[in-house]
Amino acid sequence: MRKNFSISGVPDFDADSSRKRNYIIQIIKKHFELFGFSSIQTSSIEKKSTLLGNYGNEGEKLIFQILNGGNFLSKVDKNIKNMSSNELSPLISSKVLRYDLTVPLAKFVSENYNDLVFPFKRYEIGKVWRAERPQKGRLREFTQCDADIVGDSSQLSELDILLLSNSIFKELKINSSVVKVNNRKILEGIFDSFNNKKVSFNVFCTVIDKLDKIGMENVISILKEYNFSSQNILILKKLFNLDSDFPEKKQYIRNNIKENSKLNEGINELDFLFNNLKRIKVNIPTVNFDLSLARGLDYYTSTVLEVTEKHLTGMSMAGGGRYDNLTERFGIKNVSGVGISFGIDRIYMFMELNNLFPKDLVNSVDVMFVNFGSELIEHVIPMTMEIRNLGFSCEIYSSQNKISKQMSYANKRNIKFVVIFGQNEFKSNILTIKNMKSSEQIELSFAEFKDLLLKTRNDV
Amino acid sequence: MRKNFSISGVPDFDADSSRKRNYIIQIIKKHFELFGFSSIQTSSIEKKSTLLGNYGNEGEKLIFQILNGGNFLSKVDKNIKNMSSNELSPLISSKVLRYDLTVPLAKFVSENYNDLVFPFKRYEIGKVWRAERPQKGRLREFTQCDADIVGDSSQLSELDILLLSNSIFKELKINSSVVKVNNRKILEGIFDSFNNKKVSFNVFCTVIDKLDKIGMENVISILKEYNFSSQNILILKKLFNLDSDFPEKKQYIRNNIKENSKLNEGINELDFLFNNLKRIKVNIPTVNFDLSLARGLDYYTSTVLEVTEKHLTGMSMAGGGRYDNLTERFGIKNVSGVGISFGIDRIYMFMELNNLFPKDLVNSVDVMFVNFGSELIEHVIPMTMEIRNLGFSCEIYSSQNKISKQMSYANKRNIKFVVIFGQNEFKSNILTIKNMKSSEQIELSFAEFKDLLLKTRNDV
Repeated sequence: MRKNFSISGVPDFDADSSRKRNYIIQIIKKHFELFGFSSIQTSSIEKKSTLLGNYGNEGEKLIFQILNGGNFLSKVDKNIKNMSSNELSPLISSKVLRYDLTVPLAKFVSENYNDLVFPFKRYEIGKVWRAERPQKGRLREFTQCDADIVGDSSQLSELDILLLSNSIFKELKINSSVVKVNNRKILEGIFDSFNNKKVSFNVFCTVIDKLDKIGMENVISILKEYNFSSQNILILKKLFNLDSDFPEKKQYIRNNIKENSKLNEGINELDFLFNNLKRIKVNIPTVNFDLSLARGLDYYTSTVLEVTEKHLTGMSMAGGGRYDNLTERFGIKNVSGVGISFGIDRIYMFMELNNLFPKDLVNSVDVMFVNFGSELIEHVIPMTMEIRNLGFSCEIYSSQNKISKQMSYANKRNIKFVVIFGQNEFKSNILTIKNMKSSEQIELSFAEFKDLLLKTRNDV
Repeated sequence: MRKNFSISGVPDFDADSSRKRNYIIQIIKKHFELFGFSSIQTSSIEKKSTLLGNYGNEGEKLIFQILNGGNFLSKVDKNIKNMSSNELSPLISSKVLRYDLTVPLAKFVSENYNDLVFPFKRYEIGKVWRAERPQKGRLREFTQCDADIVGDSSQLSELDILLLSNSIFKELKINSSVVKVNNRKILEGIFDSFNNKKVSFNVFCTVIDKLDKIGMENVISILKEYNFSSQNILILKKLFNLDSDFPEKKQYIRNNIKENSKLNEGINELDFLFNNLKRIKVNIPTVNFDLSLARGLDYYTSTVLEVTEKHLTGMSMAGGGRYDNLTERFGIKNVSGVGISFGIDRIYMFMELNNLFPKDLVNSVDVMFVNFGSELIEHVIPMTMEIRNLGFSCEIYSSQNKISKQMSYANKRNIKFVVIFGQNEFKSNILTIKNMKSSEQIELSFAEFKDLLLKTRNDV
């Protein structure tokens, strides 16, 4: 009977999972606001020219393109027969679905530069789309929750982002989360010292970033193809395999990589972070230096971070970093920013697998009136309105079905109290109340019933 | 300096309007839940085949189509040169952006039919897209808040939807809202009695629906084109112009239209609604019978309603109605439903114009610590965490700028308390607190400051 009209990787969420997702979102939102971020909402559709050039070659292929409206072929000349898809697409599609919330933020900052107070701390929660091949933990439509501090290059902001992430995962009770931190300047310093002219630094990052997914041997063979020397590859392999903390890895880099200014900057920045994390003695989950963390996106320039969990192979629940030039393409230079993006769908998947949702997170309705036909409706409806005004959810069963059918509905919907108000109850002005959990049945005046409801609230 | 990278009709919302929009959404959501609706979340992207055939010819043109991924031309044969846009589009695009939340609901119900409890009461809040020509009050990307009762044909549900709408507009303080109600069966009965074979009933509805936008004379001339007799047009004109309530209009219909079963059903259904609205004596805003209310969408079958305001010419803030066969196309027959959709963007526009937002709805942060460099950071950060744990938003100014610059930031961001904790304060273990509203400056221990914060909360 279950039919499939949906698109794979583009899920619907039923009432149960929707409630759980909202639980996650409420917690994230609460901490964003406690840390001083304000909500903005950017559009889901962007001009193609706004998004292109930000996500690297592989990312760009995943952008969903929207066909122009009406007679979209009118501007395509008759040479169409010989065109490739790549040549035709800019002629028939000028809009795209957003790929993340970061580039839309850069657009927003550029457009509203004079009206904003800097550092500009904004959060946004919204859907993004990527034309990936759907697989476990990788969707084509998913929800990101982003917090960014724009117009500020202080490292305190990076520390802030780490503390924010910590507060969120703590309240979600995901105690086993691990934060991986790296600094792209270190990668860049190492890359520069290798003096490889065959590939760009961004391509190098893309390869390194694959380590989690394709494994060391495959990464090494790609690096060989790109003409990296055996000596260079050996150093990288050692660094990736080194099971130690930042000071030790730092020492290894110092001993094996020729000093350069990028390298020094990157190391100093990480020194600040690790030293301060130690000094503030906050109960923070493991923060590890991971040189193989490059992040796929082109726009990161120094600190990068990901929050993962050891059972989530190759998948992160949050990720972010510092970008220094994101608004430059929109005409505004020297605006540095740092941000983090939480992936609701991954967090949901992890919490569901590990039974981390509160047990009382069920869809329920406080009160249902049994339906005895429309004669008493002018007496029942005002009671439902009063109950709702007290803040309790309430409904009248919609049709005059058999009582057993109405009670069965009440059971399935987790109704807490069923109210029987038929002709007898109307005459005596007393309601019969059934507590669906205890199956206890009592008779009360409406005023007494309201008191009972208020008492259940205070008991919680 | 303000640049425009955005697409017209596809707006971004800054922190101020975002907060106001969230205010509206929170109120709508609260009442949805008080009335016993549970949230579901459907996908924004649908198969083209899922959406087509629901919105009428004019609606369908407004659906945004997504270009297939990769080499989308690979399946197009070489005849492409002679193809029209309409012929090519199904070959290169199989997915679309949702146009409303109702058809996705029908899809969801069909897919999950065996797992749902009926009547199924769900709400959904989400973006929808229509490729309209942007104009005032008409966007290409906008947010709908829908509540529907599916699998139930009782008229109590329709009353419920009216009461729900009433509760929402009441709390939003939009007291001048007017509910227009009609029943498509009445329109259908009238249409049948006219015995016009040239057009379908759906086309007739589309024309009637334009009355608000193009005026009576234009509607009449279209009806003439469609071969409606002068006699028929006269009756319609009279009915549309009649400034009276339901009983009087009903009488006019009875006197002028030959009785038929559709007509009788429609009139009986409206009788139920108007009689009960009178009986329950709820303080409900004006509910008017408006025969010209047809609603553009093909799927409505009986009761239709719109909530508008006299200053909103031709624009509604909410609309809905009953649909009897929506899931039939997905293989499930005889599932009737009724629902209402609230348009956040119109409601926002109206409330902004009429100054209906609460005055205290501003983005603010409770506490900001002045930044004196990173030496004291291990003492400041734990204080910020404690403040946040108490539920107050708190930040440290991110860099060690001049105090005047930091205070200016605090002013612009509506910070309530600025805390000065420099070397002197560290030595004396006393914070200097500046109340930014009163400009008063006091010295407190951290424990005293926390008490002060808690006191401000209790005062509200």
